Amino acid sequence: MSRRRLLGTAGAAGATGLALGAVGGAGAYAASRPAPATALTSVGTDSVPFHGAHQPGITTPLHARGHLIAFDLAPGAGRKEAAALLRRWSATARTLMAGEPAGGGAAEGTRSKETGPDGTRPDEAGPDGGHDTGIALDAGPSSLTVTFGFGRTFFDRTGLAARRPAALDPLPAFSSDHLDAKRSNGDLWIQIGSNDALVAFHALRALQKDAGAAARVRWQMNGFNRTPGATPHPMTSRNLMGQIDGTGNPKPSEPDFDRRIFVPATPAAGTPSWMAGGSYAVVRRIRMLLDDWEKLTLTKQEQVIGRRKSDGAPLTGGTETTDPDLDRLGPDGKPVIPGNAHARISTPEANGGAAMLRRPFSFHDGIGPDGTPDAGLLFVCWQADPLKGFVPVQRKLDRGDALSAFIRHEASGLFAVPGGAREGEYVGQRLLES
Amino acid sequence: MSRRRLLGTAGAAGATGLALGAVGGAGAYAASRPAPATALTSVGTDSVPFHGAHQPGITTPLHARGHLIAFDLAPGAGRKEAAALLRRWSATARTLMAGEPAGGGAAEGTRSKETGPDGTRPDEAGPDGGHDTGIALDAGPSSLTVTFGFGRTFFDRTGLAARRPAALDPLPAFSSDHLDAKRSNGDLWIQIGSNDALVAFHALRALQKDAGAAARVRWQMNGFNRTPGATPHPMTSRNLMGQIDGTGNPKPSEPDFDRRIFVPATPAAGTPSWMAGGSYAVVRRIRMLLDDWEKLTLTKQEQVIGRRKSDGAPLTGGTETTDPDLDRLGPDGKPVIPGNAHARISTPEANGGAAMLRRPFSFHDGIGPDGTPDAGLLFVCWQADPLKGFVPVQRKLDRGDALSAFIRHEASGLFAVPGGAREGEYVGQRLLES
Repeated sequence: MSRRRLLGTAGAAGATGLALGAVGGAGAYAASRPAPATALTSVGTDSVPFHGAHQPGITTPLHARGHLIAFDLAPGAGRKEAAALLRRWSATARTLMAGEPAGGGAAEGTRSKETGPDGTRPDEAGPDGGHDTGIALDAGPSSLTVTFGFGRTFFDRTGLAARRPAALDPLPAFSSDHLDAKRSNGDLWIQIGSNDALVAFHALRALQKDAGAAARVRWQMNGFNRTPGATPHPMTSRNLMGQIDGTGNPKPSEPDFDRRIFVPATPAAGTPSWMAGGSYAVVRRIRMLLDDWEKLTLTKQEQVIGRRKSDGAPLTGGTETTDPDLDRLGPDGKPVIPGNAHARISTPEANGGAAMLRRPFSFHDGIGPDGTPDAGLLFVCWQADPLKGFVPVQRKLDRGDALSAFIRHEASGLFAVPGGAREGEYVGQRLLES
Repeated sequence: MSRRRLLGTAGAAGATGLALGAVGGAGAYAASRPAPATALTSVGTDSVPFHGAHQPGITTPLHARGHLIAFDLAPGAGRKEAAALLRRWSATARTLMAGEPAGGGAAEGTRSKETGPDGTRPDEAGPDGGHDTGIALDAGPSSLTVTFGFGRTFFDRTGLAARRPAALDPLPAFSSDHLDAKRSNGDLWIQIGSNDALVAFHALRALQKDAGAAARVRWQMNGFNRTPGATPHPMTSRNLMGQIDGTGNPKPSEPDFDRRIFVPATPAAGTPSWMAGGSYAVVRRIRMLLDDWEKLTLTKQEQVIGRRKSDGAPLTGGTETTDPDLDRLGPDGKPVIPGNAHARISTPEANGGAAMLRRPFSFHDGIGPDGTPDAGLLFVCWQADPLKGFVPVQRKLDRGDALSAFIRHEASGLFAVPGGAREGEYVGQRLLES
């Protein structure tokens, strides 16, 4: 009896929960609370499949809550330990994304037993002797996704340098970088997203626990987007500067979407075959200098961005999806969209068609040591090749973007995100076992 | 045209948004994006009234997202500046809780004009020359609440020491306290809650801006609870230890609820009349030592709490709402609910009927300097008298609670939260102007 099925229908869940409570005894998690009259909405019951050609969390609609976490392999841990870790992580991700508890006794059909074959209670009989933390109990899967990536350093530490994709070569330095090495890069990277903050935190803790002695946390960041239903615009969100973010994203309906975002099923020469169906994630912690930004007039803010704040339309008119008219001049003879406007410099037309799928989270970690808000964007973008996505765009922005006076890139990561696991396979298996 | 009404019905909002867009020109916030087929759900459209006998955010169902922020009056600022600040804050709270933009031009009917009477655009014509940040645009009020309180030090700084309630006397020291003075107390306190993280952040920034030169941020904390619809249990939530939290809360339907939580409309002798309809908030940042906690077996965790993790029922059986049988002995002759179990020590029966309304947020600020999760509970509890609510319970917990080995009180605040503002009145006016 999975938690998802238990809670999927409130009435049935109530009855089932009570019945199992009598059988399961204290502590058997199947004895979940009888559901009250209020039912789970689709916010709770929605789930994302773990298996597929691509990993989840790339084209999944923006999540209300997210965690990014990077690990380094522990000293002495190599390919074998990494393979075992990815196997554990994949099993946990699959289980949690289905709305089931992690750890011991998570297999279907075992959770209503008072004790396991070895006399322990099922919740305490996991492979590592652990039990689920219970943080996600009562909730549905809430669109949970878990996405795994490999950093450049992973390949040396596992003796797999020969299979490292050239696309993982370090990103160029940008003049506006203020990068903190301790919060950048890492051997392994996980992106967790969910529409419920406790479901996301539950997954974070379960995956951290899985790391065991094999890997140590290098850095960890938390982010958020709108709650489903708070706005009718699910695919784009406002950022903490108040701007609509993601308008220019390639759309899955576009014919070249897959080519731009994912490594093909048969990778081109020079790309290792284990990356089939994969993608590259560029992660940047972009601090927004909100105290400075908010001092600008609305007109000035819109000139910095090149779009209207209200509806995201280009300053040359139309709606959010109208192409900007980059040549149009105003009555003063100057371009309506200024030469250094963010939208002008970052538009694909100005970057040889470079495109990436931006799927960010906002972050807000309270007030920083300097008294200003420690807030901004956990920029996560996806592309088949960073040299045709993030790099050319950022290079251009770095030279003349009016927005750069109001942001600071504080951390950076580049990760190879392999294709999705097939049934019976774990993420990264084609790299680690062939 | 308020944002709430604009977005309340997706179809109408789309049409209206377009029409206003033509009139309003670039930057007029009424020209919101045409709504797509997806409608706002009640998560977005729900709103809480600002005016009333009590301030909002006390009996409001748990919010998915919250901010706590404390201010100290700036040097030289006194009663007059405080009164002006509370007037500004109340106006902003009322506006934002109705789903309208903050700052200049927020008045209904002015937002579709290209320029105001003085030739400026309405969005730039606010009393402080500022404009709304736009962060909450597109979203409904999302159950936003803003709640204001006064700390003990406020009264000296405003020459109002004679009107300070005795209930604001400092909380006693507890042996388990590890309090950080810089993150504790403060002249003024605001609690912000919403079911959308961007709506909450928008309010936080607007209220900070309102403080102007009158007050400076002392500390600020972020928290969260479940997303509406992720669980069928709206009034209680799990905390980050996986426990159901809030089961023992007094219920508004109980006859003595008001007496326990709110100062009466005619306060008893010794309580200043300006506190009529008010309440006292005790705020504690309670760090959870999750790495230690999660090493315990499920059975041990349940003995520490005295309740089953799965469904919150007492270890003596029943359901979440069953009274614990504190006298029942197990087969081993020991109490089924151990003598030091948290639920035994904190139960109202063991504390002379002391009761408080706990309305917490979880917090998770990433990984602390010691490598463990900087996570736990932003404990916020409400009572008519802290000496009959928080203090006796915490005193007892401090002496023998099994849970205390797994938590650490890191910050503390005690605030007098006046009754709700009547129409035309601002919060605290009865203190500051009579």
